[in-house]
Amino acid sequence: MSIEKKLADMGIILPTVTMPAANYVPFTISGSHIFVSGTLPSKDGVMTGKGTLGANISLEEAQDVARTCGINILAVLKAAAGSLDTITRCVRLGIFVSATPDYTDHPKVANGVSDLMVEVFGKEIGSHARFAVGVSSLPFGVSVEVDGVFEFSRT
Amino acid sequence: MSIEKKLADMGIILPTVTMPAANYVPFTISGSHIFVSGTLPSKDGVMTGKGTLGANISLEEAQDVARTCGINILAVLKAAAGSLDTITRCVRLGIFVSATPDYTDHPKVANGVSDLMVEVFGKEIGSHARFAVGVSSLPFGVSVEVDGVFEFSRT
Amino acid sequence: MSIEKKLADMGIILPTVTMPAANYVPFTISGSHIFVSGTLPSKDGVMTGKGTLGANISLEEAQDVARTCGINILAVLKAAAGSLDTITRCVRLGIFVSATPDYTDHPKVANGVSDLMVEVFGKEIGSHARFAVGVSSLPFGVSVEVDGVFEFSRT
Repeated sequence: MSIEKKLADMGIILPTVTMPAANYVPFTISGSHIFVSGTLPSKDGVMTGKGTLGANISLEEAQDVARTCGINILAVLKAAAGSLDTITRCVRLGIFVSATPDYTDHPKVANGVSDLMVEVFGKEIGSHARFAVGVSSLPFGVSVEVDGVFEFSRT
Repeated sequence: MSIEKKLADMGIILPTVTMPAANYVPFTISGSHIFVSGTLPSKDGVMTGKGTLGANISLEEAQDVARTCGINILAVLKAAAGSLDTITRCVRLGIFVSATPDYTDHPKVANGVSDLMVEVFGKEIGSHARFAVGVSSLPFGVSVEVDGVFEFSRT
Repeated sequence: MSIEKKLADMGIILPTVTMPAANYVPFTISGSHIFVSGTLPSKDGVMTGKGTLGANISLEEAQDVARTCGINILAVLKAAAGSLDTITRCVRLGIFVSATPDYTDHPKVANGVSDLMVEVFGKEIGSHARFAVGVSSLPFGVSVEVDGVFEFSRT
């Protein structure tokens, strides 16, 4: 089954990737790797998922925010590679969690996007190296930002 | 026009790269990639650009700090590659902004270095993937630290 | 002398790498690179090295925590590559230090793991690009988390 078909079965509609209004881009391609920029939880052009873990957003909410970042990453990958079926490995995810100094459950927040990758690409391609850390603040006050490196086969 | 000539036209003089007094190096080369260490806004051997966004340094000042980190990265790239004309792509920048929990304008700070890369290398080579996040503190109290991955053609 | 022999001489016993109870893995391999996940200072299955620099853990203690992260990274590398003798370069380390807003000595903390890499692999292979930044909090309340990219020769 193609990844696109699987996404449809999961009820996931990939958003359109818009170019940032600045001198960077949503992704670069170098050799067989796609480098995805730090991706935020926007939905239909509106920023969602604001808050700080340990203060004013729950773990469950933040996991969903991480998943939304992941869906936006999938959209970037499709724009980069043409088809998600060409992705051969989710190599690494960097998960930045806006969190208070006493927060400790960053890995659980990160699972929101890690689970998505394995659900979409399967265990072999979707399993990835990752880091999950607490940061003092994120752009627009969002609770999670995720960047990534993916391997793909040029067609 | 060569990149060196362009830098001269921009009035940018690249500093000398000094080796850290520790067991790491300003860059490593692996295949066709140059990995640049987290780079600080030192000028003539003096650390500048101290402060925390949202507390005691303005956006405009911090953009200039990010640009200074970028100039230091260019110096590292020249040391690594011999000539900046061999750089084929600014692949990814990681921009760490020292920021208070309620700060939200990290992307604008990051533009200080993103704009420099495009100004120096042009849109095609200079446009990059990036992340911009707020961190609780940075070495020596500086407001911005930038690391990066660049692609180059060995001569 | 083999790296394993050197580790024995240094009195370092590599721990067993356990698979995370989540949808990520301790490492991925892409081409000739091993991407190591953000690694924590666990010892014998128990999380150690808790604290925040600038608040309740000393520099010396945190350097040892960084070193413990490094030992755990060595264990991951051995699991990934089969033998540490196949590692051809420590390409990049990312060092996240849990630190208060006024903390400034992140590079000294980072030296705990940087020194280990050079001690184990020697200057030529062990010297690496790195970043060291202060984060608001880390998983389980630990003081240091380290991720990395290594180059190896497939046998």
